[in-house]
Amino acid sequence: MVAPVAVDKLLDRVESLLDRGDTGAVVDILRRLHPADSSEILYRIPAEAQNLVMQELPWEEVADVLEELDEEEMVEVVSGLTVSELADVLDEMEPDMAADLIGELDERTTEEILTEMEAAAGVAPLLAYPEDSAGGIMNSPRHMLQRHMTAGQAMRFLRKHYEDAHDLYYLYVLDGGGSTVPVEAAPGQVGQGRLVGIVSLRALLLAEPDARLDEIMDEEVLTAPADADQEEVARILARYNLLAVPIVDEEGRLLGIVTVDDVVDVLEEEATEDIYRLAQVNEEAVVFSPLPQAVRARMPWLVVNLGTALISSTVVAQFAGTIAAVAILAALMPVVAAQGGNAGNQSMTIIVRSLALGQIDLKDFWAVFRHELGVGILHGLALGALVAGVIFIWLGNPILSAVIGTAMLGNFLVAAVVGVLVPMTLRRFGVDPAFGSSMMVTASTDILGFTIFLGLASYFVAWLV
Amino acid sequence: MVAPVAVDKLLDRVESLLDRGDTGAVVDILRRLHPADSSEILYRIPAEAQNLVMQELPWEEVADVLEELDEEEMVEVVSGLTVSELADVLDEMEPDMAADLIGELDERTTEEILTEMEAAAGVAPLLAYPEDSAGGIMNSPRHMLQRHMTAGQAMRFLRKHYEDAHDLYYLYVLDGGGSTVPVEAAPGQVGQGRLVGIVSLRALLLAEPDARLDEIMDEEVLTAPADADQEEVARILARYNLLAVPIVDEEGRLLGIVTVDDVVDVLEEEATEDIYRLAQVNEEAVVFSPLPQAVRARMPWLVVNLGTALISSTVVAQFAGTIAAVAILAALMPVVAAQGGNAGNQSMTIIVRSLALGQIDLKDFWAVFRHELGVGILHGLALGALVAGVIFIWLGNPILSAVIGTAMLGNFLVAAVVGVLVPMTLRRFGVDPAFGSSMMVTASTDILGFTIFLGLASYFVAWLV
Repeated sequence: MVAPVAVDKLLDRVESLLDRGDTGAVVDILRRLHPADSSEILYRIPAEAQNLVMQELPWEEVADVLEELDEEEMVEVVSGLTVSELADVLDEMEPDMAADLIGELDERTTEEILTEMEAAAGVAPLLAYPEDSAGGIMNSPRHMLQRHMTAGQAMRFLRKHYEDAHDLYYLYVLDGGGSTVPVEAAPGQVGQGRLVGIVSLRALLLAEPDARLDEIMDEEVLTAPADADQEEVARILARYNLLAVPIVDEEGRLLGIVTVDDVVDVLEEEATEDIYRLAQVNEEAVVFSPLPQAVRARMPWLVVNLGTALISSTVVAQFAGTIAAVAILAALMPVVAAQGGNAGNQSMTIIVRSLALGQIDLKDFWAVFRHELGVGILHGLALGALVAGVIFIWLGNPILSAVIGTAMLGNFLVAAVVGVLVPMTLRRFGVDPAFGSSMMVTASTDILGFTIFLGLASYFVAWLV
Repeated sequence: MVAPVAVDKLLDRVESLLDRGDTGAVVDILRRLHPADSSEILYRIPAEAQNLVMQELPWEEVADVLEELDEEEMVEVVSGLTVSELADVLDEMEPDMAADLIGELDERTTEEILTEMEAAAGVAPLLAYPEDSAGGIMNSPRHMLQRHMTAGQAMRFLRKHYEDAHDLYYLYVLDGGGSTVPVEAAPGQVGQGRLVGIVSLRALLLAEPDARLDEIMDEEVLTAPADADQEEVARILARYNLLAVPIVDEEGRLLGIVTVDDVVDVLEEEATEDIYRLAQVNEEAVVFSPLPQAVRARMPWLVVNLGTALISSTVVAQFAGTIAAVAILAALMPVVAAQGGNAGNQSMTIIVRSLALGQIDLKDFWAVFRHELGVGILHGLALGALVAGVIFIWLGNPILSAVIGTAMLGNFLVAAVVGVLVPMTLRRFGVDPAFGSSMMVTASTDILGFTIFLGLASYFVAWLV
């Protein structure tokens, strides 16, 4: 029985070993851990120590550890390696991860690295695919079965090439044009084989040894193109409970395989991105970002919001005369604005998430719009009445009560409209619906909320003083 | 090559077939689809049609379709079945899914169902585990290998029991006490076997047929207890790129297996829950919730926010005299409050997500606090200076400029403090840090923002009129 490792405690020990200059002991610790844990420790020790440690590890193990980090982290950790050391490490990495790392380097370093690498032919084609496409996350198809193999040949072939069940997601079958020679295509390179089917392990085990694979395979295979959005592929896999999705070109030739462990990472990343964007934080933020990076991820949004807030304040300034006469309006106007902002962000968030999960799309616009308007009217009537009641009890002025109640209802309608319109419009123009939605919804409910409330108040000002 | 199905188009066709009363044709369509797709269609047709269709499908296929729905949806769809029909369907379902469905029924129906069910012994023990625990999402361990089996026996055993690679995540090995009889424990029932190791498919294929499994197995297996939080188990699996995690009791006996397809669903659900809670929407909301459910998911938060907004307005009301004298303050005070609210929600969101991803925990409090305070000071100085400049240009009053700049800095500090304190305190007391955080952060930055700004303005009021 093995429990997850307490990385923090280990990190303390590693740091005290490093203080004593005992790199050897640190290397021993890292080698005993799962790469998911040793990568965290390696990433968190000082740069010089990182370099010392990597020099004492076999490149293959350095590669395993790096594969657990994300691109930015990888680049940071390898920054002390020479070009030829880095090329050696990249040769040992999964091609898709190597391509991710190389994608972060500048053009000249990339060229140097590819010249030095032995496995360059397997990695270079992957660099053509955007990082967030199916091509960008697919793995090497490696050793594929072919339709003219017999079950017996396939068993011997698997026995030879597959290290453990973790490598073995599905048994895909290629059309190698009559040859029984295994296809060893580099990922992203078009192999000889068109994908023609999938064989279950059980079918393979049960079959007569001389049965041909194309007699026992299932020809229905769900595939995706290399330029598909990584999130779409992730959703297909999640929807059909698959362990892997094969990626094919237009002729149906196998380019690579997207596996469930990559998909889990994609879904986590995409959720984090949405959560951060909804809170107006750029997605590269991490909890302990160095200050300049933290400021870069957040300040632009604060500046934009300052702009919209100042626009709202010029709206309020138009009503300075009314406010000077009835100062309590200043205390009440944020209530109307805040309720609209909250309701608008509720609608907007539900729509953003439902779009992301594929539960709705653009053609559902009117259905969603009617639904949110219905919710907005109910909320507006209920909370408008509630606030009118509270204000009447507090201040005793029935006209003021009616004004705030009506303004609240109005702002709930504004909230419903912009809560739907903003994310749907962004999606319509191919922008992430989470991007900037909060800002636009809040600006609308502030500006229109102030206008409706102070406008009504100005009209009835004679009854308010 | 098979592409994902366009469910919406099919639904239109299904509905027109239903209008013509052609249930048979609908049944044919559903049987040709993947259960993930047919379940969506079944869920979206009218209740009477659901019942007609289910009556014409074999119970086994009804079970497959139901398994693709979530608990609430399952209960809705089966509401027209009799107790004995439902028991037949449940007998065909995966025990963990059957338990989820039964968990939604009232106590009396549950008892009746369990009396009618043939597979009750496999399901009843699962009812004891909370829905969101490892026990609540684990699957039946089914046919397990035993340490005293030989490789050849194991191969024959797998050939007999495993339908396809999808069923076969890892080959776990139990200690069956010397017997080579396979363990067929019902999930949640403690089988005869303690989990003692894991065998790779390759090791099995390569081994001599008479090698014993305990000679070729790996004894290091990462496990989790049945009462572990489902999200924790999901994170372990994601971190170590596993396809499954075995769930064991205190004696290390295998109770069940949590597989990666369930984990994908868990991670999606938990992300949705956090996104909704951060936007002050209860997690049961879905995009087309019937109005009463939509109102129930959102109105309570609007009412709470109305309460905090009214408290803020009593704060503003204290400064009515100052505002009557300098009405422009009413236009500027929302700027100070909004900037604090935005900054506080940025900090809070990053902390909530990092806590959820396990990147930080309570012991990182001071490190996070220092970090956010640093970011807050930088933002406060920069945006305080910016707003002071803008106000000076707009209104030409240097004292008013200084007052709003200082108040802004002050509110950024408030934002940093509450942005960290609120989610960390909720976590400390075992509450989801996403729950109510936005409301508390915004209330604090509103109330303290207004107080600082209007307080300073009142002090310097002589220079502002």
